[in-house]
Amino acid sequence: MTVSGKIALYGVGLGPGDPSYVTVKAREILETADRLVHFCKQGQRGNARTIADRLVGADPAREIALVYPVTTEAPVDAAAYINPMAAFYAASAARLAAEVDNGRLVAILCEGDPFFYGSLMHLWRRLAPLYPFEVIPGITGMSGAWTLAAAPITWGDDILTVLPGTLPEAELARRLGDTDAAVVMKIGRNFPKVRRALAAAGLIERAIYVERASMSDQLILRLADKTDDEAPYFSMILVPGEGRRL
Amino acid sequence: MTVSGKIALYGVGLGPGDPSYVTVKAREILETADRLVHFCKQGQRGNARTIADRLVGADPAREIALVYPVTTEAPVDAAAYINPMAAFYAASAARLAAEVDNGRLVAILCEGDPFFYGSLMHLWRRLAPLYPFEVIPGITGMSGAWTLAAAPITWGDDILTVLPGTLPEAELARRLGDTDAAVVMKIGRNFPKVRRALAAAGLIERAIYVERASMSDQLILRLADKTDDEAPYFSMILVPGEGRRL
Ligand SMILES: C[S@@+](CC[C@H](N)C(=O)[O-])C[C@H]1O[C@@H](n2cnc3c(N)ncnc32)[C@H](O)[C@@H]1O
Ligand SMILES: C[S@@+](CC[C@H](N)C(=O)[O-])C[C@H]1O[C@@H](n2cnc3c(N)ncnc32)[C@H](O)[C@@H]1O
Repeated sequence: MTVSGKIALYGVGLGPGDPSYVTVKAREILETADRLVHFCKQGQRGNARTIADRLVGADPAREIALVYPVTTEAPVDAAAYINPMAAFYAASAARLAAEVDNGRLVAILCEGDPFFYGSLMHLWRRLAPLYPFEVIPGITGMSGAWTLAAAPITWGDDILTVLPGTLPEAELARRLGDTDAAVVMKIGRNFPKVRRALAAAGLIERAIYVERASMSDQLILRLADKTDDEAPYFSMILVPGEGRRL
Repeated sequence: MTVSGKIALYGVGLGPGDPSYVTVKAREILETADRLVHFCKQGQRGNARTIADRLVGADPAREIALVYPVTTEAPVDAAAYINPMAAFYAASAARLAAEVDNGRLVAILCEGDPFFYGSLMHLWRRLAPLYPFEVIPGITGMSGAWTLAAAPITWGDDILTVLPGTLPEAELARRLGDTDAAVVMKIGRNFPKVRRALAAAGLIERAIYVERASMSDQLILRLADKTDDEAPYFSMILVPGEGRRL
């Protein structure tokens, strides 16, 4: 599936947001790559690019922005979502392949850890069979969240379940009720549903709401203290484990 | 639970093993702390200390080794395990408190991410209420493992379950059979049991065995290709998710 030789493409995990949480290897690649590629929504800069800016500054000559197609409101299993997204990844992969063919060292920047729900994976599966492609792991958003929340997530033999907030409410509730520790990702407009599922599992008092962990505008509060129904996409909910304390 | 002020103690995640996977912040602390504390077994050096050695060299004057008491064969819920371990953490916390009281900046080194099954948590819960204590997240062992195995762990809306290999076989099998993606940690002598549970869940063909991810003696193979029954403590098994490819 992967090819060897001198690396042509890097997938670089940049961690949860704090630039000092970037790895030594990631920083080195940010300093040396010919192209720094980031994903973003129309008219926005993208979190990964914002982290990179703080380390190596903005540099329009090196930058490639891959702008997601607008698919808002389309369910993720509908053709109205799948088709434009698949076309976007195929076109993006072709664009980066052309850069590599022109001799450029290309680094694709990624929030958190690339191989953990990363958009980069859709480029990697197209390009890694063709070019030497190295992925650099990053601190996950959830590690950033539980660290900044001062909430160790798993103790002793605790089981951890990571759930996308996109799941149906009943499934969220069932799984939250059958684990020692949990992380719910991809909150955004799923927030009211996720909160109801946590309530059904009796976990409101144990849950912590974390928005933009380790970024300058981070917000952390007990879920019980969150009174509104709004949450950005870049938020998650933690249910820390209560396993063996020694 | 935590106190503010000038940091007296750091808990530093050093990642899975490759020294270039250490964060910029962790490296800075390794270079500046007065004491570098690591956990180890009697007569061994400890993985976290080995990673630090490769970045800042061995330095006996700065080093504090916390040597685990020998509790082999005692089940983790038996007094023969709990009592010596609790006494060990209490004595270790007192020893580090004395260092802080003498004006030293103390860094406790940790494999992977400190707040994810880390021994450090047992010192943190004793010391963070007393002294300003900052934890620096690290790349988890599992991020190292799935990256080096070229095996993205979660796609789309995949659910990830993290299981300690210490769980009973039937519980492992049930949970492995009811998740999209899984990571089984703490393999060691649990290996034959974990393999049986994976077989019961029909996952042998999808599973990947990863030993000492990102270290110089790393070993990665399809579980189906592993013919012996031996696994070190520092190994894990991955079952990558098969969710939405775009
Ligand atoms: C597509 S996933 C990408 C995950 C990323 N690759 C990682 O390793 O964390 C996006 C989700 O990650 C979570 N996330 C990532 N970083 C975060 C942060 N710093 N604070 C809060 N949530 C974060 C949010 O739940 C968001 O919806
Ligand atoms: C007590 S837990 C500590 C986990 C650590 N804090 C982390 O974030 O990965 C120890 C377990 O982590 C796993 N582990 C950690 N680093 C690893 C690596 N580089 N390769 C394989 N397994 C690793 C093994 O399953 C081991 O039994």
